[in-house]
Amino acid sequence: MFISLEGIDGSGKSTQARLLAENLRARGHAVVLTREPGGSEGAEAIRRLLVEGDPDRWSPETELLLFNAARRDHLERLIEPALARGDWVVSDRFADSTRVYQGATRGDLRALVDSLHRLVIGREPDLTLVIDMDPEVALKRGLARSSGEDRFEDFGLPFQQKLRAGFLALAQDFPDRIRIIDGMADSETVAARIEALL
Amino acid sequence: MFISLEGIDGSGKSTQARLLAENLRARGHAVVLTREPGGSEGAEAIRRLLVEGDPDRWSPETELLLFNAARRDHLERLIEPALARGDWVVSDRFADSTRVYQGATRGDLRALVDSLHRLVIGREPDLTLVIDMDPEVALKRGLARSSGEDRFEDFGLPFQQKLRAGFLALAQDFPDRIRIIDGMADSETVAARIEALL
Repeated sequence: MFISLEGIDGSGKSTQARLLAENLRARGHAVVLTREPGGSEGAEAIRRLLVEGDPDRWSPETELLLFNAARRDHLERLIEPALARGDWVVSDRFADSTRVYQGATRGDLRALVDSLHRLVIGREPDLTLVIDMDPEVALKRGLARSSGEDRFEDFGLPFQQKLRAGFLALAQDFPDRIRIIDGMADSETVAARIEALL
Repeated sequence: MFISLEGIDGSGKSTQARLLAENLRARGHAVVLTREPGGSEGAEAIRRLLVEGDPDRWSPETELLLFNAARRDHLERLIEPALARGDWVVSDRFADSTRVYQGATRGDLRALVDSLHRLVIGREPDLTLVIDMDPEVALKRGLARSSGEDRFEDFGLPFQQKLRAGFLALAQDFPDRIRIIDGMADSETVAARIEALL
């Protein structure tokens, strides 16, 4: 089973991905915990091009091609082999992040996002958990951290509100696959909500 | 006017691109001489991912996405601004290299090559010169150089023969745009052939 976690910056999805992987391992499953962009050796090299440098280093279209190149590598080299072995895969972000970040917020690229996904990815997670969170709270959390990967972290509250709306709209587009998890609690409580859902 | 030079490895197209740019400058034109993969700052960073490392570092599909990302950046940041200023652009390789290298030789990817080109590039040179050359002669030339960019240079004679056939077939697909130049002569003679054609 392939599960992705999605949400705005500071929503706690990386923590929840880790807790979910631990939880599944405790139940005896083999679990591959991974993230995007990145997750495989080649995709991590592409990630460095994406997260470092000026915010306008890449046009939205070039950026989208790089995200798809990284995702294709991640899928071929890590996710599909793991699923073929019968492992569970838990990924911190997958294609829905591209739909929301590049499709909803950086020019009107959603048609191109969908065309590229169909052409070169063509795979969805079995289940996607959107960790939903008040953007004001999430932004304060996000600012408290410093990842050193600055290209995407200077966008402020209106941008985070747009992202949140994008994830909620996406959950309506994919009702069979995407579940909203209320992320406004401590991480153990949110993890228990996810466990209850599974 | 946007002119690309194409051909197999060792065909002399880089030399001819340089001589053509000098020639056009001598006639008073402003000329941007560039190359692919690369040509702009971002595309050169992507080039390093493409030309360095193991031959199987990328799958054909991931590689194709990286070539398109580099080309999109090159087009947006260098080629289109130059053409908008009224400069001439001479590029050592452009999309035909992808059609031949990725489309004809690395799995049967030609349909995907064409779909991606339509989606994210959508532009052809005004004129493309294929420097045609006996692959056995070209290979000897190529082996005499050492570029340090090894990912694409170990493929041997049958591969170069396949590439040559690919370029000649492409010239038939785009008869209005692509011209074959006989490259089996010293570089001044070949440059004179190109000048006569222009």
